[in-house]
Formats: sequence, structure tokens, C-alpha cells
Amino acid sequence: MFTMTVTPRFGDIDVLGHINNTAPALWFEQARNPFFKMFSPDLSITHETWHLIMAHTDYDFIEEMFFRNEVEIRSGVERIGTKSFTLHHEAWQENRLCVRGNAVLVYYDFIKRESVPVPEDIKKILSGHLIE
Amino acid sequence: MFTMTVTPRFGDIDVLGHINNTAPALWFEQARNPFFKMFSPDLSITHETWHLIMAHTDYDFIEEMFFRNEVEIRSGVERIGTKSFTLHHEAWQENRLCVRGNAVLVYYDFIKRESVPVPEDIKKILSGHLIE
Amino acid sequence: MFTMTVTPRFGDIDVLGHINNTAPALWFEQARNPFFKMFSPDLSITHETWHLIMAHTDYDFIEEMFFRNEVEIRSGVERIGTKSFTLHHEAWQENRLCVRGNAVLVYYDFIKRESVPVPEDIKKILSGHLIE
Amino acid sequence: MFTMTVTPRFGDIDVLGHINNTAPALWFEQARNPFFKMFSPDLSITHETWHLIMAHTDYDFIEEMFFRNEVEIRSGVERIGTKSFTLHHEAWQENRLCVRGNAVLVYYDFIKRESVPVPEDIKKILSGHLIE
Repeated sequence: MFTMTVTPRFGDIDVLGHINNTAPALWFEQARNPFFKMFSPDLSITHETWHLIMAHTDYDFIEEMFFRNEVEIRSGVERIGTKSFTLHHEAWQENRLCVRGNAVLVYYDFIKRESVPVPEDIKKILSGHLIE
Repeated sequence: MFTMTVTPRFGDIDVLGHINNTAPALWFEQARNPFFKMFSPDLSITHETWHLIMAHTDYDFIEEMFFRNEVEIRSGVERIGTKSFTLHHEAWQENRLCVRGNAVLVYYDFIKRESVPVPEDIKKILSGHLIE
Repeated sequence: MFTMTVTPRFGDIDVLGHINNTAPALWFEQARNPFFKMFSPDLSITHETWHLIMAHTDYDFIEEMFFRNEVEIRSGVERIGTKSFTLHHEAWQENRLCVRGNAVLVYYDFIKRESVPVPEDIKKILSGHLIE
Repeated sequence: MFTMTVTPRFGDIDVLGHINNTAPALWFEQARNPFFKMFSPDLSITHETWHLIMAHTDYDFIEEMFFRNEVEIRSGVERIGTKSFTLHHEAWQENRLCVRGNAVLVYYDFIKRESVPVPEDIKKILSGHLIE
């Protein structure tokens, strides 16, 4: 489980005083950096060095979040498949689980332009972060 | 089916030349305005006049999108429940379905702070936009 | 003068009912596409085909903008220098000038990694869009 | 001087490998929370409890920023006027000043709908964060 703390932005709050549904999409993406480093340790992004494509994201909005306090993002691995894997993210504020969501990432060869199996050594690293 | 055309923004494109996965979240939200007007015709947003809370969103990324051309967003009603309904959105570029997603919205009384049944007259309007 | 119409997004509105100060930054960037096409007609973005770097932006927030109506973005050329030029953008809503701002772009060779003079033929095209 | 560390987001990086010009606008807004607390200690945002309107922002893009490392935001007070004040923000990455910018905020009474003088006790707190 990786954790990251984010500071809500004044503009993240909509007119009803809640954090807008699009803010967690940005937070969860920031929280994926530790996973990205498993694939590209120096976070270099070129067609040769990057290997991930986003296939799916989803978000369940469980409780309202407010401007007044920081939010903790907790991230882990939900599933490891042959050519893809699923990350699970949660946004917690004031000890309440407020948003949870998943991201399905496909291992991809940008030169050949096709999905390929996730290397075994990276699978092993990912499996160390499986949830439950 | 409502349609809306969006212009990709230079900053929407990530380093691999594709539109980032967070951009459609913003486009689909813009595309919900015609539905919001069914509930609040003048788009006034106060605790008295607004009645919708987002419960869930999801996104399937099917094809890459690029900077070079505009994107068409198509939106309709997927499901009408007692206290909630589901909108379906699609992003099309160069005659390809690139992203599709859903948003579950709950009809909510912000004064009583509880979900309440969607009024019958609004259900009727929504049902005129059901897909298939 | 180029014009573009944008639909305010529910999440663009802050808790006081106004469009947040960061939204026009996104709109003005979208509105720069016609200028980008003068430099890269097919909007291809590679180190060989792209020639612009952002050096400065500024925004004056003159009047409040609201969710209820569309916003018109008007854009023109403010200044043409040797190696850079300045674009001017305005956001109008309900016949009121609400935000105005500038963007200074530098003509840049991404292979040599240095700024170079704007080609004369592009200067000529830009000059056709000078304001006043 | 307040400091805050931000993690660049994959989608903040544009196709040339640089952080897009709109990202610092979001970071600088997050970095204003300590100043907002001087005016509204519990960060409650209502027409009665909030007193600030954004009048101007500007950004100078000095050096490129990359995905690979965190960015430090440094913020202080540039100027204290009668009814407004100016904050100064800087984004540093890898010991380089990459972006600097200003935000002019007006003290505003949202009930009377007019700008009013900044209270003396808040001016005193602000002056403790003046730069140079």
C-alpha cells in the first residue's frame, strides 16, 4: 500500500462545497508514480522506455470531501494478469473513505504497437503490493 | 442523443502523443449540461435549486485520440431508476469510438440531506433520451 | 480575430458561484490552435515539427463568469518580435468582457535547443491577425 | 516563505516532455491555502466567511520542468495594499527556478458586493511573510 497526501485546491470545490468528481482522477494519477517507477525506474517517457497504456478507470463517490483538510490517497495492486494489471486507489479524508476507484493498465510495446506480457520480474514486484 | 464538439488542448496530449485519460472526464462533465437543465432549467446552483450528486463514473479507453482533430461527445440516458439514473457518454474522433463511459447521478435534497425519488415529470423528459 | 465558444463545466464553478481563475488558462490554450496551425499545419507535435515554447502568460479577472451561459473566447496577435510574439485572449460572457490575458510564445528549435527567428512567411500570416 | 512539494502528474507532461504551462496555475493555487487560512482560519467558504477575489495572475516560464522529480513551490507576500495584496510564487525543480508568478487578491465583502480595506490584524500577519 502506497500513501500520498494531497492538498485540496480552492478550485477543486464546486458550488455546493464539495470536491468535484474530476479531482480524484488527477490525484489517483499522481499516486500511480510509484507503480510507474517499477516499469521505468527513472520515469523517462519515450516510445522505447514507456510501456503502459490506460484501458479503464472507474470511481465510486462514497462520501463528500471538503476544502478544509488534506486528503490521503492509498494505492495498491488489485489484480495481476498476463498483459495487464489493475490498481486500486482510495481517497480518505477525516478518517472517512470518500472515493475508491480502479485503473486497468495494459503492458504495451509502443514500437511494435501491440500489447505484450508483463515481464515476470515486474510481476513479482507488483505482487508485493497486492491488497488483502 | 446530445452531441457536443470539443477542441483538444495542447496540454491534453501526453508525452506519447495521446490525449490523457483525465481529459474525457472534463469533456463528459461539460456534455452533461443539457441533462442538468432538465433538473435546473436556468442552471442556478444553490442548495435549494440543485438536486444532483455524482455517485459513480467509469471510462473505457478503446482507441487513442490525437491533438490534430476535434472530438465529438455523444450523450444519452442509459438507465432511469427510482432515485438515480445513468448517463452514457462516448468520445468519437475521426469516425472512431475512442472512449465510452457512464455516470450515475443520484437525485438529492440538499436541505434534508437525503436522496429522494426523481420527479415523474423529469423521468418523462429523461426517457425521451434513452439509448436504444 | 479568432473566436471560439466554450461551455462552462459544472466543476469550473467554485463555491462562490464564479468560474475559477484556472479555467480561462485552459480555454485560452484551446483558442491557440488556429495559431499553432500557422506553424504546424497538421498539428503534428514532434521535436522536428513543433517550434513553440511558452515564455509568459497573464490574466486579468475583470468580471465574474457564471455557469449558466456559454463563454466566447476572442484571440488575436498583440505583438510580433524577432524570435517571439504575443497573443491576446479575451473571455466574454453575456456581452461583458470578463477575463483578458496574454501569452508570449518563443519560436524554438527543439533539435538545436535554442530560440531562432520567426520565419518571415509566418510573420506575414501572423500580421494578418494583429489587433487594432 | 511557505513551501509545498508537489508530485508531477503523468498527464501534466506535454508531448515534448515538459510540464504544461497550465499545471503551475493549479500548484500555485494549492500553495495559497496557508494565506487563505489567515483570512478564514477553518477554510469555511460561504458568502459570509470568505473575503477574497482573484484580480490578476501572471506566470514566467524560465526553465523546463520534467516528470522525473518533485517540484517545490515557494510562496510569500510581494505587496500589501489598502484593499488588495500580491502573492509571489516560485516553482523549483532540481535546484532550478523554473516558473515564477504573482497573484493579486482583492479583499471583498460578498454580502455588500464591494471591495473593502484589508483588516489591520490580517495585514500584520501578511507582513510577517513579506519577501526581502
